[in-house]
Amino acid sequence: MPVTRRIPASTIRRLSHYLRSLEDLEREGGETVSSEELAIRGQTTAAQVRKDLSHFGSFGKRGLGYKVDELRECLRQILGVDRVWNVALIGAGRIGSALYEYPAFETRGYRCVAIVDSDPAKVGRQWGELCIHPPEDLESLIADLGVELVILAVPARAAQVMAERAVAAGIKGILNFAPIRLKVPSHVPVEDVNLVMQMEALSFAITQRGSGA
Amino acid sequence: MPVTRRIPASTIRRLSHYLRSLEDLEREGGETVSSEELAIRGQTTAAQVRKDLSHFGSFGKRGLGYKVDELRECLRQILGVDRVWNVALIGAGRIGSALYEYPAFETRGYRCVAIVDSDPAKVGRQWGELCIHPPEDLESLIADLGVELVILAVPARAAQVMAERAVAAGIKGILNFAPIRLKVPSHVPVEDVNLVMQMEALSFAITQRGSGA
Repeated sequence: MPVTRRIPASTIRRLSHYLRSLEDLEREGGETVSSEELAIRGQTTAAQVRKDLSHFGSFGKRGLGYKVDELRECLRQILGVDRVWNVALIGAGRIGSALYEYPAFETRGYRCVAIVDSDPAKVGRQWGELCIHPPEDLESLIADLGVELVILAVPARAAQVMAERAVAAGIKGILNFAPIRLKVPSHVPVEDVNLVMQMEALSFAITQRGSGA
Repeated sequence: MPVTRRIPASTIRRLSHYLRSLEDLEREGGETVSSEELAIRGQTTAAQVRKDLSHFGSFGKRGLGYKVDELRECLRQILGVDRVWNVALIGAGRIGSALYEYPAFETRGYRCVAIVDSDPAKVGRQWGELCIHPPEDLESLIADLGVELVILAVPARAAQVMAERAVAAGIKGILNFAPIRLKVPSHVPVEDVNLVMQMEALSFAITQRGSGA
C-alpha cells in the first residue's frame, strides 16, 4: 500500500460508496466493472473514479475494467475494514443505546467491546454480553481490551475530559456526538456527528430559497 | 434578508457554530463580541467570520464589534431556527427511537409531530403523546399536520420509496439515515447521516498513517 497523505474527505466518502457498489455488484454476480458503471452507481464521473483510485496505486486494465473481487478487497484494505476494530462506547444514553449493536457497525468490523456511563443507576447493567462500567474504568478497559476507537455520546460538558482521557489511554480515533469541537492531538482523527447542525442546514436551505423567491 | 444562493456547506456549519457561541456568550452576560473572539470560539479566523457574515448583510460596527443579542437573532433567522418546524419520523427502530424527543432537536424548534413504521407490531403503540401510524398514513399526516421535514430512519430498501412519497406529499427537506443516495428533486435538500462512513473515515486515517510510518 503506497503512502498516502492529505486525501480529501470527499474522496474518502466516495471510496466508501465504491466499496458498497462493488459489494452490491458481487451479490448480483458481476465479475468485472468499468469506471463508468462505478461512476453511475456512485453519482460521480468515470474520470473522478479513476482519479480517486489513482491515489492508491494502479487498478484495472484498459478496456477490461476492474475485477470486482480484487478491487473490493483493495478498497477494504485502504479503508481499514479488512480487520476488526475494538470500540468503546462512552455514554449509555438514548444515542448510545441506538449505536450499541448498530448492525451496520458490526458488519463492517466495528465491534463494541466496552461501555462506560457516569450514571450510577446504569453502571452494572447488562447490555447483551456487556456490562456498563463507571467512567473510572475507562483507561483499564481501553488497555485490557485493545480499544482503538471510541464513540463519544455524552453531554457537551463531559465530552472534552472524556476525550482527553481516552486519547491519553491510547485510543486512535473518535466518533463524536457531543456538540462541541474537541481539542485533541492532530494524530487522533475526530469525526463529528452533529444532527442539529444537519437539521439547521436543511432549514437554512429552505428558508433562504423562500427568501429568494 | 438578502437573496443568497450557493452558500458552501462549510459556511453553513460555521454559522451554526457562531450561533452556539453567541448563545454561550449571552449566558455568560456578554453584550458585545468581536470577530476575533467569535473566531477563537469557532476555531476559525476573524477574516473568515467577517466573510461568512458578509453573505447576509452588514453586521457590527468597526471597532465596536457585534451586539450579541442582535447577531444571535439574525443568525437564528438566517438558519431558519426562529420558528418551529414540524417533523415526521419515518422508521421507529433503534435510531428512530433515539431521535424521537432528542432534546437538542426540540430546543432548536424541530418538533416531531408524526411517526410511521411498517412493522404491524409497532403500529398503534404510543410514544409519549404520539401514536405510531402505518406507512399508508404518511401523506395524510404530512398534509394534516403541516409536516415540512422528515427524518428517514428506515432500511435502505425502503428509503427511496418513502422519500418519494414524502416529497410528493409536499415535504421540503430530508435528514436521511439510510445508507443510499436518495434521488429527489433538486429543490428538496437532503442531509445524509452515514455513521458507518464516518467510522470508515477514522479507520482510513489510522490505517493510512500506519502504512506511511
